[in-house]
Amino acid sequence: MRYSELLLPTLKETPTEAEVISHRLLLRAGFIRKLSSGIYTYLPLGLAAIRKVEQIVREEMNRAGAQELLMPMVQPADLWKESGRWEKYGPELLRFTDRHDRESCLGPTHEEVITDLVRKEIHSYRDLPVNLYQIQTKFRDEIRPRFGLMRGREFIMKDGYSFDASEKGAEITYQKMYDAYQRIFKRCGLSFRAVEADTGTIGGSFSHEFMVLADTGEDTLVICKNCSYAANMEKAAVQQPEKPREDVELLPMRKVETPGKKKVDVVCDFLGITPDKLVKTMIYLADGEPVAVLVRGDHEVQPVKLKNMLGAVDVELADDKKIYDITGVPSGYLGPVGLEIPVAADQEVAVMVNFTIGANEKNFHLQNANLPRDFKVIQVADLRQVTAEDRCPSCGGLLELTKGIEVGHIFKLGDSYSKALNASYQDSNSEEQNFVMGCYGIGVSRTVAAAIEQNHDEHGIIFPLPLAPMQVIILNLDPNNEEISTAAESFYSRLQEKGLEVLLDDRDERPGIKFKDADLIGIPYRITLGKRFLQQGEVEIRTRVDGKTQSLSPDAAMAEVVSAIQDGMAATRAEE
Amino acid sequence: MRYSELLLPTLKETPTEAEVISHRLLLRAGFIRKLSSGIYTYLPLGLAAIRKVEQIVREEMNRAGAQELLMPMVQPADLWKESGRWEKYGPELLRFTDRHDRESCLGPTHEEVITDLVRKEIHSYRDLPVNLYQIQTKFRDEIRPRFGLMRGREFIMKDGYSFDASEKGAEITYQKMYDAYQRIFKRCGLSFRAVEADTGTIGGSFSHEFMVLADTGEDTLVICKNCSYAANMEKAAVQQPEKPREDVELLPMRKVETPGKKKVDVVCDFLGITPDKLVKTMIYLADGEPVAVLVRGDHEVQPVKLKNMLGAVDVELADDKKIYDITGVPSGYLGPVGLEIPVAADQEVAVMVNFTIGANEKNFHLQNANLPRDFKVIQVADLRQVTAEDRCPSCGGLLELTKGIEVGHIFKLGDSYSKALNASYQDSNSEEQNFVMGCYGIGVSRTVAAAIEQNHDEHGIIFPLPLAPMQVIILNLDPNNEEISTAAESFYSRLQEKGLEVLLDDRDERPGIKFKDADLIGIPYRITLGKRFLQQGEVEIRTRVDGKTQSLSPDAAMAEVVSAIQDGMAATRAEE
Repeated sequence: MRYSELLLPTLKETPTEAEVISHRLLLRAGFIRKLSSGIYTYLPLGLAAIRKVEQIVREEMNRAGAQELLMPMVQPADLWKESGRWEKYGPELLRFTDRHDRESCLGPTHEEVITDLVRKEIHSYRDLPVNLYQIQTKFRDEIRPRFGLMRGREFIMKDGYSFDASEKGAEITYQKMYDAYQRIFKRCGLSFRAVEADTGTIGGSFSHEFMVLADTGEDTLVICKNCSYAANMEKAAVQQPEKPREDVELLPMRKVETPGKKKVDVVCDFLGITPDKLVKTMIYLADGEPVAVLVRGDHEVQPVKLKNMLGAVDVELADDKKIYDITGVPSGYLGPVGLEIPVAADQEVAVMVNFTIGANEKNFHLQNANLPRDFKVIQVADLRQVTAEDRCPSCGGLLELTKGIEVGHIFKLGDSYSKALNASYQDSNSEEQNFVMGCYGIGVSRTVAAAIEQNHDEHGIIFPLPLAPMQVIILNLDPNNEEISTAAESFYSRLQEKGLEVLLDDRDERPGIKFKDADLIGIPYRITLGKRFLQQGEVEIRTRVDGKTQSLSPDAAMAEVVSAIQDGMAATRAEE
Repeated sequence: MRYSELLLPTLKETPTEAEVISHRLLLRAGFIRKLSSGIYTYLPLGLAAIRKVEQIVREEMNRAGAQELLMPMVQPADLWKESGRWEKYGPELLRFTDRHDRESCLGPTHEEVITDLVRKEIHSYRDLPVNLYQIQTKFRDEIRPRFGLMRGREFIMKDGYSFDASEKGAEITYQKMYDAYQRIFKRCGLSFRAVEADTGTIGGSFSHEFMVLADTGEDTLVICKNCSYAANMEKAAVQQPEKPREDVELLPMRKVETPGKKKVDVVCDFLGITPDKLVKTMIYLADGEPVAVLVRGDHEVQPVKLKNMLGAVDVELADDKKIYDITGVPSGYLGPVGLEIPVAADQEVAVMVNFTIGANEKNFHLQNANLPRDFKVIQVADLRQVTAEDRCPSCGGLLELTKGIEVGHIFKLGDSYSKALNASYQDSNSEEQNFVMGCYGIGVSRTVAAAIEQNHDEHGIIFPLPLAPMQVIILNLDPNNEEISTAAESFYSRLQEKGLEVLLDDRDERPGIKFKDADLIGIPYRITLGKRFLQQGEVEIRTRVDGKTQSLSPDAAMAEVVSAIQDGMAATRAEE
């Protein structure tokens, strides 16, 4: 491609609308443009990067025995009513009626459609397993789309669905997809980690998320430094606490005045105790119903764990006004004693003795509270977030907390959808059995954004070679000089003949602009032809990732770039 | 691919819902399945055929200097209001509001979005021309979707848009696209014709349609047997008629009784005249307003010509009740004399003398009517359909009428959109000028259907080699026989090593079923391994298009199939 003919509108200024680095760089590099909230046009080089991800995904899905098809984006409401999700799915499901007043929606995901297809077309265990996927534009009407391609409303996704005859078969298929995902993100040239994940509203019995590691990630990963344990913070289990010593004397509960002391630290300071001797009472609304959750003063509630314990669709923290409406107590003095709503306790609260709680009265706390002597709870469970001080729930090793961006998610769904949609096959005894399903997503456009979050510097994007929209950029620093231009054109055609993807910057612009743009758009290899070529017959080659430069003769430069790119691509393709 | 692992649910029965051959065969071959009215899932081999079209389109668009990008499917209403099409576009534009009550629509086409992008990103004549395209799923809420992929609601389209600095530049770009389209459909292996076309509601100054020739086509093409003239029936011009001889005497008009005689033939028989001496009065509603149109008794009104003459968005023929409501005259006796609505006349009526018309009174006609002596018309124009008896408007040669399916459409749009959206660039004098635009569509999924309409027999599809989802099918007639299976597997891997796309029918099914399915799905080359292989060491190769079979040794068969496919692909790629 010739830069002079390419729609690549780079920006000098950082767009004010962009909050995260990938969004800023995608806009500045001229890769995307916003059409409306959360909805972007992919310009030529942005699309080229997306296509790189698509092609890797396609090849590895096919290699793993999955078949590509393409389902519609507009889906009839009937199927969603059959699965029960027409009611359950929130306003992210964009619903509308067509000209004949038929209720429809824009597909955010395709469990219903694929299950409908398979129940109609596959009837015998002999035709199982089957694993189907598509790469498609999806729509989710996010309430607050942001971060460019990280959380848009319209985005490109690979979604795959498997149908097996048995739990065991489904687990084999799940493992195949797990392995395929490992290969996919390795081939993308990304540093990533698969973690155990919550199964969320999509349901299912177990799941893994594939996380691109990046300091700017929204998700926190809990990784054991000793064993292979890794989990999303939402899912990461806390070790079972040790039982309290039996010989600790339970002291009588007493009310103490704590005037104006509301926050944990302040109360503890005032009472001369450490936060692990205090229990916080948090009020949540679970599908609208209030519930109190007790955690130790130095711990935080993990809402997803709470949601799963309650079997709720949605939980949210109550605000101060809501807390007062529900309990009649101002926030900061809440406690479980005498509270008239259900109370759940984190497992670590259940092993505490003689702890401090709010007195349900302004300016007062209770000390030496004890369970179950002073109050009762409906359930005790692991309800808190893991901290860096916790130990691995699997091996007891030290934990590391790190940030990541979710780019893939695989679920073992079981038979929830096949039961709801009455999707079954005949087993070898001619008996009808529900399919055992799995589903497997990859955020294709999001992977490009995550790659940028992970790989950039102050000058711009540093594309991993397999995702780069172009592999080499040739800078012709003086398009008006015939000698330089002839040599640049020769590089351009010779590199293309070698099968490389080449961008020739043939614009009539100052060298400084060309250097800046080349850094900004993040092409892995740069070949520069300027004064040194005229004077010494040498060209400069520079690697974007480490800024290393070499001055070489044209032939040596050709050979160097070609072999570097071929080796680089081969390295990501190699099987482990 | 192995048939045993492929989702390819062929059907023995012809689905009752399918009215046209491509729809029937796409369903029977297991290439598509309906999700809801006009909305289909593309199963693996159906998608593979679509991808073949996409890839040819992509390569030829890139070769012609166009750049691929991808615009959103969900579009904001604002842009459509700016262009004026929010009002003008009918209910085919699916409109909805999102969760924040913002009006949006599903993109049936992208003139607004691309013009908005270009007006923001391109500011100078130095950056022109620019030609941008995308391959995308589109949605049009057709009132009566039918014919499978021929007229669906959701479909895959390539839409391209060009921006030039001048009319002349736009014409050069238009010609490049015309040439690219010629290459595209040639490379698809289709018999097709480019015809002059009406520019329709999309606007613009001239346009061509690319028609796949097929007896089942909905469109009629008017093709000159002598020169290069070819036009869609809607557009095809009628030669200017000769003026009447000056010495013909205008006879006095007289009223005659024609009891119960209403139809042209019946009236003419009764009066002893030929239909070319009678003038029919047709009532149309142009955007709801009545207008009478006069054509000779042996001619038919061409509504698109009428619409264009009137500058109307929509014209429709009035039914008998409407005619009576408007004129007070029963259908069959209408005439222009004394009619109180506007009357337009086809150019051939204007050169008639002493003709017969309805008397606007039941059971009566008027003879020897003459223009302008007896009545007046608002306009005279070419308003009728061409017939096979007409002569070429360009050279006077003989015409041929044939049927076709529109698969591509190119328009020179001019500045209608750039003016409406205030999209301009600075010319070399630093003056703002509106872009001169063109737009270029290809129905990608429709092309697959059109290919089938053109290429099939009573046994199934006969794919042109470049569009075939697989190039060769190997029939293993006895998967339980080790010798046959080993040889079949060897063919399968050797052909794939040669870069061919191979389907191996390894199913445990009867030979009859395998032969039938192979014919149905239309794979160009078939290699059969059965009894003859065991007995004589020979395999059969068969060409789907002509049914020719040869028995050859395995090595000879390999060589034959490989060279046939390589030659066949090369032939469609060759430049003219």
